[in-house]
Amino acid sequence: MAGTVFFSVSMSLDGFIAPESSDELMGKQWMELQQWIFPTRFFRENLGLGEGGEEGPDDDIARRTFARTGASVMGRRMFDAGERMWPEEAPFHTPVFVVTHEEREPWERPGGTVFHFVHDGIGSALEQAREAAGDRDVRIAGGGATILQHVNAGLVDEFTVAVSPVLFGKGVRLFEGVDAGRVALEPLRADPTARTTHLTYAVRGR
Amino acid sequence: MAGTVFFSVSMSLDGFIAPESSDELMGKQWMELQQWIFPTRFFRENLGLGEGGEEGPDDDIARRTFARTGASVMGRRMFDAGERMWPEEAPFHTPVFVVTHEEREPWERPGGTVFHFVHDGIGSALEQAREAAGDRDVRIAGGGATILQHVNAGLVDEFTVAVSPVLFGKGVRLFEGVDAGRVALEPLRADPTARTTHLTYAVRGR
Repeated sequence: MAGTVFFSVSMSLDGFIAPESSDELMGKQWMELQQWIFPTRFFRENLGLGEGGEEGPDDDIARRTFARTGASVMGRRMFDAGERMWPEEAPFHTPVFVVTHEEREPWERPGGTVFHFVHDGIGSALEQAREAAGDRDVRIAGGGATILQHVNAGLVDEFTVAVSPVLFGKGVRLFEGVDAGRVALEPLRADPTARTTHLTYAVRGR
Repeated sequence: MAGTVFFSVSMSLDGFIAPESSDELMGKQWMELQQWIFPTRFFRENLGLGEGGEEGPDDDIARRTFARTGASVMGRRMFDAGERMWPEEAPFHTPVFVVTHEEREPWERPGGTVFHFVHDGIGSALEQAREAAGDRDVRIAGGGATILQHVNAGLVDEFTVAVSPVLFGKGVRLFEGVDAGRVALEPLRADPTARTTHLTYAVRGR
């Protein structure tokens, strides 16, 4: 379906998508959470890290997720963290709509990523992202709070969670505060790979 | 490996294994959590509900889990709840070691389930269960707190989580309080079925 609104994240088996601190253990857990993507050929290509990398199901999934995305919506905290970390050629290569209170001119990066700053809420950001995406899909890039706002508002059509073989014990939970009385899930696909298990669900109302 | 100590539970995608209350919504979510097992032929057989039920991968998994179990360890709260709910022919058909402060004579049920009450801790319960299980495995039946005590004490060799397509939002979390600094996971198997995804991990120290 063109114009699908989706998200795609890696989650620990106990439900976390990010560490709450940056100590050594959490750094190790973070690597384990994401370890399905780092070795892929797509990951190296997309960040301009040069040749090489693995092909196979994880690479296919990362590549398909990228290819379907015509535009993204992002929360301010993810943007603020990313602004310091992304390479100059930011890894989105499409328009990204950042939900923020800050007024700021669009920020164009080499390689096709343009950050647009939206200060009238997620509804407006999503509408602009849909328009920019054209026939392709809109990805709610993150962070967790922004994803959950969209889920609870009934704005997400489907999502993929890569359930990785690690326990965090603490951190940022993907579904903390989900409106479970309104959100039902329909399983669409399950793709186990050697490093993680990609689970895809459609979001339905209750 | 004979004598493996394992647990096997159904978990919501957001990490819960039981509701915290018994309102209508949670009852519905509870059914969705467990819905892979109710239609199986094994479930009907084991509870003496008569003929019928579905065969297939969920049935195979439920049947294998039962067949490998030579004895179980159970927390007092799970026993207390179960005592009111299990049919006279309790569904274990093997010795069950209940960790409790109560002193009580063994309670033998028709069909081979014998509840033994152990009041000197989980180490003792597990030791007795190992001996009773012989060549078969020991299942930590639950509830969540008892499972986690065994995980954190390094006593669990492997486990299977059936990740079901439901969000709870609140309830009893399987891994709440896990000692993430000591527990690493190695994925062993992933078995997606139409109703859930069975994920099996070995527990390793860090």
